[in-house]
Amino acid sequence: MTQEKDCLDLSNKSVEEILELVALAEAYEAGQKPKALNKDVKVANLFFENSTRTVTSFQMAEHNLGLSRFDVNLAASSVKKGETLSDTLKTVEAIGMDIAVVRHSEDGWFDQVKQEGVKLALVNAGDGAGVHPSQTMLDLLTIKQEFGRFKGLKVMMVGDLSHSRVVNSDAHVFKKLGMGLTFAGPKEWWNDDLKHYGKYVELDDGIKEADVVMCLRVQNERLDDKEASSFSAEDYIKHYSVNEARAAMMKPTAIFMHPGPVNRDIEIESALVDGARSRIFKQMKNGVFARMALLTKVLEANEWMEDEA
Amino acid sequence: MTQEKDCLDLSNKSVEEILELVALAEAYEAGQKPKALNKDVKVANLFFENSTRTVTSFQMAEHNLGLSRFDVNLAASSVKKGETLSDTLKTVEAIGMDIAVVRHSEDGWFDQVKQEGVKLALVNAGDGAGVHPSQTMLDLLTIKQEFGRFKGLKVMMVGDLSHSRVVNSDAHVFKKLGMGLTFAGPKEWWNDDLKHYGKYVELDDGIKEADVVMCLRVQNERLDDKEASSFSAEDYIKHYSVNEARAAMMKPTAIFMHPGPVNRDIEIESALVDGARSRIFKQMKNGVFARMALLTKVLEANEWMEDEA
Amino acid sequence: MTQEKDCLDLSNKSVEEILELVALAEAYEAGQKPKALNKDVKVANLFFENSTRTVTSFQMAEHNLGLSRFDVNLAASSVKKGETLSDTLKTVEAIGMDIAVVRHSEDGWFDQVKQEGVKLALVNAGDGAGVHPSQTMLDLLTIKQEFGRFKGLKVMMVGDLSHSRVVNSDAHVFKKLGMGLTFAGPKEWWNDDLKHYGKYVELDDGIKEADVVMCLRVQNERLDDKEASSFSAEDYIKHYSVNEARAAMMKPTAIFMHPGPVNRDIEIESALVDGARSRIFKQMKNGVFARMALLTKVLEANEWMEDEA
Repeated sequence: MTQEKDCLDLSNKSVEEILELVALAEAYEAGQKPKALNKDVKVANLFFENSTRTVTSFQMAEHNLGLSRFDVNLAASSVKKGETLSDTLKTVEAIGMDIAVVRHSEDGWFDQVKQEGVKLALVNAGDGAGVHPSQTMLDLLTIKQEFGRFKGLKVMMVGDLSHSRVVNSDAHVFKKLGMGLTFAGPKEWWNDDLKHYGKYVELDDGIKEADVVMCLRVQNERLDDKEASSFSAEDYIKHYSVNEARAAMMKPTAIFMHPGPVNRDIEIESALVDGARSRIFKQMKNGVFARMALLTKVLEANEWMEDEA
Repeated sequence: MTQEKDCLDLSNKSVEEILELVALAEAYEAGQKPKALNKDVKVANLFFENSTRTVTSFQMAEHNLGLSRFDVNLAASSVKKGETLSDTLKTVEAIGMDIAVVRHSEDGWFDQVKQEGVKLALVNAGDGAGVHPSQTMLDLLTIKQEFGRFKGLKVMMVGDLSHSRVVNSDAHVFKKLGMGLTFAGPKEWWNDDLKHYGKYVELDDGIKEADVVMCLRVQNERLDDKEASSFSAEDYIKHYSVNEARAAMMKPTAIFMHPGPVNRDIEIESALVDGARSRIFKQMKNGVFARMALLTKVLEANEWMEDEA
Repeated sequence: MTQEKDCLDLSNKSVEEILELVALAEAYEAGQKPKALNKDVKVANLFFENSTRTVTSFQMAEHNLGLSRFDVNLAASSVKKGETLSDTLKTVEAIGMDIAVVRHSEDGWFDQVKQEGVKLALVNAGDGAGVHPSQTMLDLLTIKQEFGRFKGLKVMMVGDLSHSRVVNSDAHVFKKLGMGLTFAGPKEWWNDDLKHYGKYVELDDGIKEADVVMCLRVQNERLDDKEASSFSAEDYIKHYSVNEARAAMMKPTAIFMHPGPVNRDIEIESALVDGARSRIFKQMKNGVFARMALLTKVLEANEWMEDEA
């Protein structure tokens, strides 16, 4: 496996590399202990955008791997004083951090900072409307646990297709692994770039065929902004919410997923969130193992952890 | 002792159980080392309301017990994205937390989240105008250190009686332990529910009888809001502030307490805060031992720490 | 060496004491391991003013020394409830903290809190427009590494002279160590108190003589406030920015420094920040060793770490 010192984007990884990452995450989930580190590895968590689940999940993964964790409080930071992202990262690097886990609103923030000479190992925890590799990994782990395979599975993504880095990130990798994709949601929120990965379908048609129904979070401001949109919360619920009636149309083995946080009774009927088909809390649990796997590869590539085999 | 997997409210505990908790807190204060944990116990601190002393005190108690600590930054969280408290707690549970220490503005937040299927161990660090069990425990520890007993002691609570979870929380347990209660403060801030625990008295009468004068924090906005109240800061000070003259009326052995943070020269004359009768900083010190005792019971009940026979 | 239980201000230290601190920082930089602690030393970081580099640098220094670290979230704190700084510090002391690292906007905050009875060890991470001892130490370490000595070196400070605790803090100690100082910058931002340390010069004159050109951060609001100032960003850049043309006038061995965060292309031309003469990122790296040295002296003075010698 080509060792990359960073973890930025899964799209350039081969099928074999992705499957190896999924297998490592499965091993961690099954209780495999991480290998020991050969130095005190220091990781800085820099979340420039709000998050609870992603940051907490990374913290737990870091804890489980034995990393020394530094959570940089960006609300009270030099960022407010106009410092560039590269300078912030060079600062934490100079201070002695080995890895920075970064979420930032700018698409592909990592390309620029690498060009500007940032050298510490970088982990992308979400870049603007770009990609979200640790989310894609946890989605893959959840699907693998359920179906034991990827090839031939049908995944339907439902909802706010135009603004979601989850969609961008997952669609590329899912297609590469041989999954078939369809998309449903308000036409106004359709994103033409997705044509490359699958076709737009009516929810009530697509839901019958899907093995995985992946609901996407609706930004509340999108439903509130009645000037800019012909959609209201009621319209969204009527046409795109996964409710009991629609769930009844699904294949017996099909599951729901959602990247969280869920707007209950908007994207999915509340009872279904906690129901038998839901893998939503399982996804959150898997997030820790997925992130442990991604961080393990970074640790190995930097020779801070013995390579597996 | 009935073992409860959570620590939510002391009001359903027996006198024996409460005395056992006080004894354990005293033992920690005297230097007793906590028993070893049998697993890596992970605790998430989720403070939805402002706090310095309570959160820092819990952090120290967790540190002293050897817990792995995760402080969830709620200012930058999914809560702002409209997630329910239950979903936030299910998320941290899925991520692998064993215990959540929660302060939340909603009275009895824990009842609902337990009904909604939250399973990780919960510690109530204050619920709305409900209860504040770790504050009650530290108040008990402070009184026990001073007088060696509870039965027959007279406690007067002074000030903002209507909005204080400290009053609610303490009054019930104090009465159960055989302490006599009186209440003083602006009549407009009186809370009729307190009649069950003791009677309203004039400060200058009650103060002569009390063993413990517990001053309550006045919310600044209550004094500022001159439209809604006939009270001003000057009126409050004149009628309800514990000053040198009033302190001189107290029994020789009587003490002041205050849950903090103190508005110096409002609830108490500043010199008295640091004076011989004040146990205010002692209370803060005791908070750590009180919280260690409460958390120890949670650890034992969950079988993460050997039970003390 | 006189042992001080706090680290508040370097100005009362002797030349020998300062050189000993620099030597210790150099030893840490060269890989010397800190001595073991004889107890679990708990440090609270209380930053009442925004910071990334200083707080993260202190955290790393604390980590490297084996301290137990508590980062107090002041955005969600009792400070908002009107608590005095002394009461906040007495609270963290009562909770069991051994050391408080504090940045606060009030000049000389430590004098008042010591008068008011705060007893835990205090480390000044910057007081208003007062001093910033750990910044001065890292500046000294950087100069020592470069030139091997202090005596006779010429240092020019450029920019916003009137509001900078870096200037105040450095000027006193630099002079004591035998360095010669000059100052350049907008006359409106000149601070008459600096006459004691050196004279005001034209940038283009002074830059030819200087061994160290220390650029000071311009507060953005100072350039934006066109009403109050005859200066604009363009004026500042024209007259005071260290650009390629000015850098070409410098001695071959001269270096730039900057306390950060840098406004690229304002105080210094962006390419120079990353160029051969820049020690800006080296300063950030040195900050950790400088803080380890200062904290070591606090640990020794409190007898929590075996004294060297």
